[in-house]
Amino acid sequence: MEKSTSPAPPVKITIINFDSTGFHEREVRRVEDCYQVQKGEFPAWINFSRRLENQELEKFGEHFDFHPIILDSIEDPILRPRLQDFDNYILIVLSAISFNPETHQICADKGIILLGKKLVITFLPKEELFTAMMEWLRELKTTSHKMRADYLVYAILDTVVDNYLVTLEQIWEQIDSVEEGLLTNPTRGTLQLIHDLKQEMISLRKSIWPLRGVVGSLTRLESPLVNQKTKLYLLDVFDHITLVIDTMEAYREMLSGMLESYLSSISNKLNEVMKVLTIFSTIFIPITFVASIYGMNFQYMPELTAKYGYIIFWVVILLMSGTMLLYFRKKKWL
Amino acid sequence: MEKSTSPAPPVKITIINFDSTGFHEREVRRVEDCYQVQKGEFPAWINFSRRLENQELEKFGEHFDFHPIILDSIEDPILRPRLQDFDNYILIVLSAISFNPETHQICADKGIILLGKKLVITFLPKEELFTAMMEWLRELKTTSHKMRADYLVYAILDTVVDNYLVTLEQIWEQIDSVEEGLLTNPTRGTLQLIHDLKQEMISLRKSIWPLRGVVGSLTRLESPLVNQKTKLYLLDVFDHITLVIDTMEAYREMLSGMLESYLSSISNKLNEVMKVLTIFSTIFIPITFVASIYGMNFQYMPELTAKYGYIIFWVVILLMSGTMLLYFRKKKWL
Amino acid sequence: MEKSTSPAPPVKITIINFDSTGFHEREVRRVEDCYQVQKGEFPAWINFSRRLENQELEKFGEHFDFHPIILDSIEDPILRPRLQDFDNYILIVLSAISFNPETHQICADKGIILLGKKLVITFLPKEELFTAMMEWLRELKTTSHKMRADYLVYAILDTVVDNYLVTLEQIWEQIDSVEEGLLTNPTRGTLQLIHDLKQEMISLRKSIWPLRGVVGSLTRLESPLVNQKTKLYLLDVFDHITLVIDTMEAYREMLSGMLESYLSSISNKLNEVMKVLTIFSTIFIPITFVASIYGMNFQYMPELTAKYGYIIFWVVILLMSGTMLLYFRKKKWL
Amino acid sequence: MEKSTSPAPPVKITIINFDSTGFHEREVRRVEDCYQVQKGEFPAWINFSRRLENQELEKFGEHFDFHPIILDSIEDPILRPRLQDFDNYILIVLSAISFNPETHQICADKGIILLGKKLVITFLPKEELFTAMMEWLRELKTTSHKMRADYLVYAILDTVVDNYLVTLEQIWEQIDSVEEGLLTNPTRGTLQLIHDLKQEMISLRKSIWPLRGVVGSLTRLESPLVNQKTKLYLLDVFDHITLVIDTMEAYREMLSGMLESYLSSISNKLNEVMKVLTIFSTIFIPITFVASIYGMNFQYMPELTAKYGYIIFWVVILLMSGTMLLYFRKKKWL
Amino acid sequence: MEKSTSPAPPVKITIINFDSTGFHEREVRRVEDCYQVQKGEFPAWINFSRRLENQELEKFGEHFDFHPIILDSIEDPILRPRLQDFDNYILIVLSAISFNPETHQICADKGIILLGKKLVITFLPKEELFTAMMEWLRELKTTSHKMRADYLVYAILDTVVDNYLVTLEQIWEQIDSVEEGLLTNPTRGTLQLIHDLKQEMISLRKSIWPLRGVVGSLTRLESPLVNQKTKLYLLDVFDHITLVIDTMEAYREMLSGMLESYLSSISNKLNEVMKVLTIFSTIFIPITFVASIYGMNFQYMPELTAKYGYIIFWVVILLMSGTMLLYFRKKKWL
Repeated sequence: MEKSTSPAPPVKITIINFDSTGFHEREVRRVEDCYQVQKGEFPAWINFSRRLENQELEKFGEHFDFHPIILDSIEDPILRPRLQDFDNYILIVLSAISFNPETHQICADKGIILLGKKLVITFLPKEELFTAMMEWLRELKTTSHKMRADYLVYAILDTVVDNYLVTLEQIWEQIDSVEEGLLTNPTRGTLQLIHDLKQEMISLRKSIWPLRGVVGSLTRLESPLVNQKTKLYLLDVFDHITLVIDTMEAYREMLSGMLESYLSSISNKLNEVMKVLTIFSTIFIPITFVASIYGMNFQYMPELTAKYGYIIFWVVILLMSGTMLLYFRKKKWL
Repeated sequence: MEKSTSPAPPVKITIINFDSTGFHEREVRRVEDCYQVQKGEFPAWINFSRRLENQELEKFGEHFDFHPIILDSIEDPILRPRLQDFDNYILIVLSAISFNPETHQICADKGIILLGKKLVITFLPKEELFTAMMEWLRELKTTSHKMRADYLVYAILDTVVDNYLVTLEQIWEQIDSVEEGLLTNPTRGTLQLIHDLKQEMISLRKSIWPLRGVVGSLTRLESPLVNQKTKLYLLDVFDHITLVIDTMEAYREMLSGMLESYLSSISNKLNEVMKVLTIFSTIFIPITFVASIYGMNFQYMPELTAKYGYIIFWVVILLMSGTMLLYFRKKKWL
Repeated sequence: MEKSTSPAPPVKITIINFDSTGFHEREVRRVEDCYQVQKGEFPAWINFSRRLENQELEKFGEHFDFHPIILDSIEDPILRPRLQDFDNYILIVLSAISFNPETHQICADKGIILLGKKLVITFLPKEELFTAMMEWLRELKTTSHKMRADYLVYAILDTVVDNYLVTLEQIWEQIDSVEEGLLTNPTRGTLQLIHDLKQEMISLRKSIWPLRGVVGSLTRLESPLVNQKTKLYLLDVFDHITLVIDTMEAYREMLSGMLESYLSSISNKLNEVMKVLTIFSTIFIPITFVASIYGMNFQYMPELTAKYGYIIFWVVILLMSGTMLLYFRKKKWL
Repeated sequence: MEKSTSPAPPVKITIINFDSTGFHEREVRRVEDCYQVQKGEFPAWINFSRRLENQELEKFGEHFDFHPIILDSIEDPILRPRLQDFDNYILIVLSAISFNPETHQICADKGIILLGKKLVITFLPKEELFTAMMEWLRELKTTSHKMRADYLVYAILDTVVDNYLVTLEQIWEQIDSVEEGLLTNPTRGTLQLIHDLKQEMISLRKSIWPLRGVVGSLTRLESPLVNQKTKLYLLDVFDHITLVIDTMEAYREMLSGMLESYLSSISNKLNEVMKVLTIFSTIFIPITFVASIYGMNFQYMPELTAKYGYIIFWVVILLMSGTMLLYFRKKKWL
Repeated sequence: MEKSTSPAPPVKITIINFDSTGFHEREVRRVEDCYQVQKGEFPAWINFSRRLENQELEKFGEHFDFHPIILDSIEDPILRPRLQDFDNYILIVLSAISFNPETHQICADKGIILLGKKLVITFLPKEELFTAMMEWLRELKTTSHKMRADYLVYAILDTVVDNYLVTLEQIWEQIDSVEEGLLTNPTRGTLQLIHDLKQEMISLRKSIWPLRGVVGSLTRLESPLVNQKTKLYLLDVFDHITLVIDTMEAYREMLSGMLESYLSSISNKLNEVMKVLTIFSTIFIPITFVASIYGMNFQYMPELTAKYGYIIFWVVILLMSGTMLLYFRKKKWL
């Protein structure tokens, strides 16, 4: 699990206004440009592509009346997913992931959602996530949902969780490809891959478990900011998170099982190698001994001058080898 | 665990009407033919052999007054088993399985049950399941139960769970056959089989645990659609699910134990192979050395010309071998 | 864990009537003979040695006013231990075991207890169990307890649980005997025994855990059929079950520890074997090479004709061997 | 874990009376001598060094008005720690341990405490325990606590739990001494010791977990026999028990970790042994083959009569050995 | 985990007084000098660098009106983290750690915080901790928080927990450096390091789990000493502790995974070593046997005098070696 630590690009601020016919998207440069937002019957959504500078953030927070702890939470880089209800805002901290199938690296980024009255403010550092949301909105335009702020939050959460499911599917392909050759032809790369995937699973769990708590709390939250109808949709997200966790746990156990099988397979191979060595050694070591006896230079060795000495030697050798082979067959080594 | 992904056959719609004497089954072609259903004192049951096309589904849903989330649930292919109460309908999503003993593959399919007022609508993609239900109904006809919609749902759930028990029994046969030769004659196929069965157990657990939650919730649900008497029968299903889970957990542990024993057995065998090799090597390597000494061509080697040289050589060789054999007996290697 | 599947013997029906002085036991042939039972101030106990035929059972159930689910439960062969309160009867399904120390097989049988008003009806297929109960009753006769139906049920449960404790004690003896020679002289039989005992523990757990739930529920049950005083005694049974579970878990962990130690011990032995092989090989292989050099037939080999060639050869050989021995001593292989 | 099974010595009955200045201790012979006890403002304490004979016990129980279940509990040798409130008495069953560092045996004994109104009756078979309590009382004498019966019970429980902590400290010394040489110089004794300590931990857990429940219940018990102030002290005992459990669990995991490391260490050693063997074999086996070639007696072998044959032989031999050594260095075996 | 057991230095008593502009720090020699403290609107903080002597402590406790259990808790060296509310004080026992990356030793010290009315009394044996707090205070001075006693306690807890996070980061660096060479080049030092880190994780868990309970209780505590606003900050500390625990658990699993991979890697290496040995042995042992045959001195050996004997010998040798090499290639050993 790697934190994405690319050098901070200039912050991109996007403002999306909803009305009865759809939504308007525009990008602004300065934080102050956001202050005009938030009017009318329909909600607005402000997204920042990364954390603001401390001073900007403080001003921004002052204008939108943030509790100091909200500011702390936006600044704190190590916060784990959580939900906190400050009457005027609901703060949602979440962890969005993406998987790079080539390096087997899962990249996790903290995202922040602030659900206010007809206002959603988000800090989504993962561009894919924002792009996916925009596409979702565009598709939605044609259908005539009356957009609500809490429904928008549901959509963001759903997109984040869908990302987990996509990641798991990619991981599944990796697992599947590993499993194929596991017992018949295990290589050192297999071991490395299982090891990597296992470690990734452990990291993943650190992100998803608290997210489950967050969405669970959100469905139970008594707040005028969250509509009862939206909660039914949130239950769906909760269900998907549970699916993610179940799948993840199943993968973890599968990977453990694969490691065990890999080890068994290696043990099996070692056994096979040793059998070959032992069969060769136990057949040839004794007959080599016999041969070396008759290579000795003792003056008196009656066998050497015996007429059929050499032929008897071969008979003895073949008898010895045959006995050993029968013994190995009995032991089922052959 | 494989999702059955055969190319979609044309949807088969079956309508079953109950009356005081039994039931009438008929098959219809078009979704619209279902709209006349649902009259009188006794319940009706509509079963679809697979998901409908989106448009058909929407029309169907409109006619029968489905909540949008019900439509979403029918469409969503990855939903895990769950229960949701929409006043006019109770939605049950479940996972039905079947086991192919030859490939050791468990095939899981999502089924959907909608329990309405005197109406049950089901999407059961697994044909066996539907056939089993029909047989159950035919047997029932002779006895004079007054059919109720919730009792029908109980029967479907019972059939699904029975299928799990049958699957477990088939798996048990596999486990039993593996265990027989485990410690005396473990083969590579044994390892593969244990590995496969373990992975299947992990998949199975993903289906059955949420099903337990579903049936548990159903027995506690306060809804006019579920009769108090039926709940007593549902407790029976719940009990069977718990039995499935207990059995499954026991199998999993047994398989883990078998893998451990397999590994121990392999270690044992390796040990035995190594002992054979060591006994042969440690006996023959020294005496071969002695023989090779007297194969040397030094001019001055008094032993070679000694009268009893060759006989003494044999005495020494036998003494050396004897000593080694005694040593091995003391070490209990023989 | 084997289900006892001997061919069904003719059912044995025993009726025990209690009065103020003790109890009368008599055996009847036909189910109808039970119908006269159940009169007066003291309870009666009817025991069946096995399940009845379906028709007989139905008649019997009709006479004694059984709920259909009670009949289902008696027929269902795979029911797990459970408690269900049908106002006129309390149904207790339990699992009674016995251990065969020679085959290391635990035999489990389903037993059924129906606690009614001044009436106990039981299906106890395990004869030992019934015999043990009769003995308990005979001993009780002298003391002047006023027998109650619920106290009788307590006695049966206590007898069943005592049986578990006896079984565990027998298993303990097995474990203890295995442990003795575990680290010093492990054999293949040891592995088989540990494996068998582990698998038995897993089966055992499947029986005892639900039994705990049953007795626990019974102590909390609000029913006129269970007296408050009896519940104090039932707490004792509950305590014994908890002891069984604790002991069983401890045994399981001990067996796991023993398997680990067995494996370590095997590894140790392998190591020892390999050391012997390596010591012999690394000493004799080089000196055999030296000997084979001077067995070569090159025309020009000055060492062969040197005066002290042979003596120098021996000096070299001894130096080489000595160096190796010192090396092994330094490595602590000797 | 061994039950101490020394032949029953004659029971020793000690009566301790408290007054405002301290306490008086006296030993009596007969059970009847206890009956005069229990008067005045301060509590009395009767301790039995072992279980009474059944008849004596019954008489004793009758005099002090024991519930039949209390008598059963005193007689039952296998009872696990528990708490039961019989209005006039609180029954505490506990398990006291002591550790013999030489045999690595933990000896556990059941103790019983009956807390009545101004009366404490105990059966403490472990003499050390009683001795420790007496010392504690003697020290207390100088300070002017007004002794209460429940405070005395607290003191006994505290002494019992302290004993666990002392035992754990002794076990820690064992663990520590094992860990020292674990990775550098593991011996077979190491394995035996780890195995023994692990099994002891499993037994220990069986004693301490229920004790935690007992003390926890005692702190929550609503009874006139237990003062609110004493409960604050009991919380301290509870805290110490939790410390015992935490420490024990940590030790168990440490021992598991040590066993794993031991196994890894053995594997490492095996690897090292095999490398030595392989290096020697792969260097000497080929060159011995070369030497044996020139020991052949073929008539036509031009090399034998070549002028520099023998020297070229040595060059070849050294080149072969050198190549192998380079190969091993590349493989990092040297 | 080592308890720091340096010989007790003279106790250092530091008194910090807050006022509206900041704080004043002074050091006093005698315990009595603390008695003048605690006046005015703002809180005071007294810190002791180590436990006091018993008599001093008792006097001190008397002056500040401590409950006897508070005194016991300060004296008790083995107390685990806990929270107790004595109306006039809240007692917090915690465990502060520091990590020495060179010895891989985590050093844990018990700290005690007493939160009174406008008064905080602490026993912080870890100097770093106190120094960190002072720095925090100095930074705070410039900002104009109105200091409250409970906020100060929050700051201490936050500092302690931050220390855990720093320690985990240091441990992470260790883990990361180990993981790098784990599969490609495992050494014995790797094993030692993994073993040490695993044992440290076990110790760490013993400290952090109860701390979580302490802070959790503090956020739920109904006490006039803890302000509602401060609880929001304490939730932040709680969140960080949960992060510590999650991270720790993830590390533990990672280390377990690494140990498993290390073992697999060793097995792999052993396999490779054995293959080399087997390839060499099985090629050279048979051909050496052939060579030794023609070193025999039988009078009648037709091959020796055959014209192309020697050349045929070489052809046979090469054929044999070639066959073996093909066999190994087929087995994928080469």
